[in-house]
Amino acid sequence: MNIGDLTSGILAGKYRALARAISLVERDDPSTEALLANIYPSTGRARIIGVTGSPGSGKSTLVAALAKHYRRQEKRVGIVAVDPTSPFTGGAILGDRIRMQRHALDDGVFIRSLATRGHLGGLSRSTFDVVAVLDAMGYDRILVETVGVGQDEVDVMRAVHTTVVVTVPGLGDDIQAIKAGLLEIADVLCVNKSDREGADRTVRDLMHMLDLRPAGDRKQVEIVNTVATRGLAPGAGLDELAAAIERHRERAWTGEGGAARARTRAAAQVAELVRALLADRAERALAASGGLAELAAAVAERRQDPYTAAETILDEI
Amino acid sequence: MNIGDLTSGILAGKYRALARAISLVERDDPSTEALLANIYPSTGRARIIGVTGSPGSGKSTLVAALAKHYRRQEKRVGIVAVDPTSPFTGGAILGDRIRMQRHALDDGVFIRSLATRGHLGGLSRSTFDVVAVLDAMGYDRILVETVGVGQDEVDVMRAVHTTVVVTVPGLGDDIQAIKAGLLEIADVLCVNKSDREGADRTVRDLMHMLDLRPAGDRKQVEIVNTVATRGLAPGAGLDELAAAIERHRERAWTGEGGAARARTRAAAQVAELVRALLADRAERALAASGGLAELAAAVAERRQDPYTAAETILDEI
Repeated sequence: MNIGDLTSGILAGKYRALARAISLVERDDPSTEALLANIYPSTGRARIIGVTGSPGSGKSTLVAALAKHYRRQEKRVGIVAVDPTSPFTGGAILGDRIRMQRHALDDGVFIRSLATRGHLGGLSRSTFDVVAVLDAMGYDRILVETVGVGQDEVDVMRAVHTTVVVTVPGLGDDIQAIKAGLLEIADVLCVNKSDREGADRTVRDLMHMLDLRPAGDRKQVEIVNTVATRGLAPGAGLDELAAAIERHRERAWTGEGGAARARTRAAAQVAELVRALLADRAERALAASGGLAELAAAVAERRQDPYTAAETILDEI
Repeated sequence: MNIGDLTSGILAGKYRALARAISLVERDDPSTEALLANIYPSTGRARIIGVTGSPGSGKSTLVAALAKHYRRQEKRVGIVAVDPTSPFTGGAILGDRIRMQRHALDDGVFIRSLATRGHLGGLSRSTFDVVAVLDAMGYDRILVETVGVGQDEVDVMRAVHTTVVVTVPGLGDDIQAIKAGLLEIADVLCVNKSDREGADRTVRDLMHMLDLRPAGDRKQVEIVNTVATRGLAPGAGLDELAAAIERHRERAWTGEGGAARARTRAAAQVAELVRALLADRAERALAASGGLAELAAAVAERRQDPYTAAETILDEI
C-alpha cells in the first residue's frame, strides 16, 4: 500500500489502513512523516483525554469504564495504552491482552498499546502520531492511558487536551511524592476505589495540595470520586468524571484562551519533533561511527574521558 | 572557584568543592565538561549500586539501612536520589528532607537528590556525572536510588554496577507489568517488607518469572528477603542483601568478563553524551528560532503540518 492509498484509506475510515499506519509509526518508518503530513488537515475533531496516575490505582479499569460511558453515547472511542516501563517486551503486550478481552466484540472501540520507540522522547512523539491517525479516522474520543509515573508520562500528556490523574485512598509516602509531580499536570483529579476507607481524607489531602499551589498558577482542578469496578452503575462516578472532563474542555480549549493553548501545544509538538529528528541524526552518527568501540575501550580503561570521546564522535558528523 | 581549584578540591575530598561541583552538574554549566574530564582518571574505585522498584516498596528505608550497613564497615557512602517524577518542584526536595534527617549527624554519608536536568536523557547523564564526582572524592559505596518506575529509571541504572530491584508482597496487576520491565535490568531482586503475608508467594512468582527468561539470556539473579524497617537487626536481611550485591560484583565486574562489561558501559555512556550534546544543539536552535511561534500558530490552525514545520526549523540550523 503506497502512502497515497494509505492516506485515502485512513480518511475513509478503513480499519486495515489504520493498522498499517500505526505499524509504520511504531517502526518509525521513513514514510510516516509523509502520511502524517497528508492526514494532518483532517485532524482536530477528536477530544483527547489522558489518564495517568499511581500504579495500582485501577487506571485500566477506569479507562475501560470511561470508554463504555462514551460508547453508550454512540461515540467512537480509541484507546492508546502507553507503556514506558518495559523497553524490551512484556508490559505493553500484557496490558493489551487484558483490555482487548473487554471490548473485543465492540468495533466502535479501537485499542492499541505503544511501547518505547527509539530513543529520547520517542514515546511522546509516537503518542502524538497515533492520536493524529485515530483523530483523522473519525474517532470522537481518544483515551491515552499511561502505565508508569515518570517523566515519560508527563511528556506523553502533552499530546492530550485534558489530563485525568488517578489516585486511590491509602497509599504510602512514595506515592505522595509522585502525586506532587503529577498534580502539576492534572486537569481533573480522580480518587478511584472511593469505596475504600480513607477516601475522604485523600480528597482533603488533594484539596490541601491544590491550595498550596503558587497564587499565580491556580487553574481550576475538579476532584471526582469513582469506583470504576462498578462500571456505569449509579454511584460509580463515571458520569461525574465525564462531566468534569467536559467542563475542563469548555474552560480550557474554547474561545481565545483555547486558541492560545492550541498554539502552545503545537509549539511543544514542533519542538519535540525537532529534538527527535536531531536525535535520529545522533543515532545514525553513532551507528556509522566505527570509532565508538575503540573510544569506549579507552574510556573504560580511563585513558580517555567520556566527554572528550563524545566530542570526538560529534566532530566526525 | 575556577575549574583548576575545583578539581584539586574534589581530589582532596573537600566538601565545599563537592557541593560546588554538583551544583555545576545540575545547572548544566558549560564548565562541567572540563571538570569531569579532569577528575575522570581518578574515578573507578567506588562500587555503584542502584536501587529501584515499585512505589511503596520502601526503597528509601532500604537505602538508608544499606547505608548504615556500609557505615558499620567504615565505608564512606554517597546516596544519589534520582527523581524523574516531578519536572518542576517538589518530589526530589521532599525525599531529600525525609532522608537527610536520618543521616544528618554522620559525615561519612553524603546525600543528594537529582531531578530532571534539561531534556532527553538528562537524568541519566546527571547521574553518571554526580556518581563520577563522588567516586573521585573517595566515596567507597555509591547508592543510586530512583523514585519512579519508567524508562528514566532504566536509563539511570546504566550508570551503576549492580541493580537491586525492590518489590513487596501483595501488589496488583499494574505492578506485575512493571516488574516484567524492571526484571530485565535486575541483578539482585529484593522482596522487602518480607514480614508481610504473601512474601513466599512473591518469591515464588519472581523465581517463575526468572525461569521464563529466554534460554540465551539467563544471568544469575539472587532473590533476597528483607525487612528494611528493622534496620541492621538480625533477620532484617541487610547482611544477606549486601552479600548478594558483593557476589554479583565478583561475577559481573572482575576478570575478562568484567573488562568487557566496562567497555559496554563506557560505550553506552559515550553514546548518551553524544545524544545529549546533539540535544543541547537542538535546544539552542529552538531558542534561536524566531520562527517557532509563527510556525506553531500555522500548525495550530492546521495551515501547516508539524512535520514540515520541524523540517523548516532544522533547515535553519
